[in-house]
Amino acid sequence: MPESLDIVKGSPNVNYCSHCGAPVTLRIPPGDDRPRYVCDACHMIHYENPKVVVGCIPEWEDRILLCRRAIEPRHGFWTVPAGFLETGESLSEGAQRETLEEAQAQVEILTPFTLFDLVHVGQVYLIFRARLIDDNFGPGEESLEVGLFSEEEIPWNEIAFTSIQETLRLYFQDRTAGNFSLHTGQILPGAHHPTDRFQEIFMETA
Amino acid sequence: MPESLDIVKGSPNVNYCSHCGAPVTLRIPPGDDRPRYVCDACHMIHYENPKVVVGCIPEWEDRILLCRRAIEPRHGFWTVPAGFLETGESLSEGAQRETLEEAQAQVEILTPFTLFDLVHVGQVYLIFRARLIDDNFGPGEESLEVGLFSEEEIPWNEIAFTSIQETLRLYFQDRTAGNFSLHTGQILPGAHHPTDRFQEIFMETA
Repeated sequence: MPESLDIVKGSPNVNYCSHCGAPVTLRIPPGDDRPRYVCDACHMIHYENPKVVVGCIPEWEDRILLCRRAIEPRHGFWTVPAGFLETGESLSEGAQRETLEEAQAQVEILTPFTLFDLVHVGQVYLIFRARLIDDNFGPGEESLEVGLFSEEEIPWNEIAFTSIQETLRLYFQDRTAGNFSLHTGQILPGAHHPTDRFQEIFMETA
Repeated sequence: MPESLDIVKGSPNVNYCSHCGAPVTLRIPPGDDRPRYVCDACHMIHYENPKVVVGCIPEWEDRILLCRRAIEPRHGFWTVPAGFLETGESLSEGAQRETLEEAQAQVEILTPFTLFDLVHVGQVYLIFRARLIDDNFGPGEESLEVGLFSEEEIPWNEIAFTSIQETLRLYFQDRTAGNFSLHTGQILPGAHHPTDRFQEIFMETA
């Protein structure tokens, strides 16, 4: 369901109570401090929370696997396998599933590598390092093509998302230094393009 | 909204479309591979995803801050400040907010310390290390009392959640070793109590 990568902060579509079907009102419930969609019939409060995107950097010798997107947003651009964490799976299982779906590849998940906040789109990104089990891979339904890239071959100007571009930059930086560690950071909307999510700024934290 | 810590995998209450108010059906949408709540009137698919719980271990000299819960689940048991990540805040901002709400304390957030999957309740836990700005603290509305504890004073038999008990165990283990690093793991339902979330098993991963 990669279309849902387009989901923006909050939901523009909460008009009715998913429990009883009555209309909801956006108001601050008693004891709370922020507006929620509240059903005036059954009094259910409908919370909305950020979503987790999980993925991995699949390694094969000195190269890494990238997928060229067959879907919007960013059709035709390159990324690592990643997508929304599903109910019923762990973070590493989610990263494995996305790799299988998008690149028909099997990976062993290694350690978490980047953990980014994308507050402006209500997402948290967690990208693992991973190792390809073998060199069998190919485009899944959501990919135009899949390939292995050395550092010199990375198509830096055609990477789909700022979060992935920064993940790859940090990956090769750490690899050159001979030491991989967890990187945390925020992806912020670009100062001159507050509503364009493809104009973003990276800020490394802790 | 700490009651929602009780939310279990999926939602038992999706009966109507939150967009148009028509009844939904649980079925596998075209191109998908798992059941979703789909509106047969407006065709909107209602995805459900895991929620992120953020918190921190607030340090003050050689002691850490714990809160005794004034709310269910686990009323009267001890925990570190933690709660659901909200839309519109970063992971570290969420941990700071929870600390202010539950312990009236201000913290500087340090590095991520534990990252746990709780697949059986549809949650991901991220607990940071943190430093109290000063020694001003007190019980917020959701806490009976708040206090500083040395390692010897930790009420190990009265810790509210397995995720927090393991976080504290790893914290003192790393502190003794003189080196804090990120720990990942899964909290699994107890083998003899698959439906009792307070009978849980910890399994460290990568």
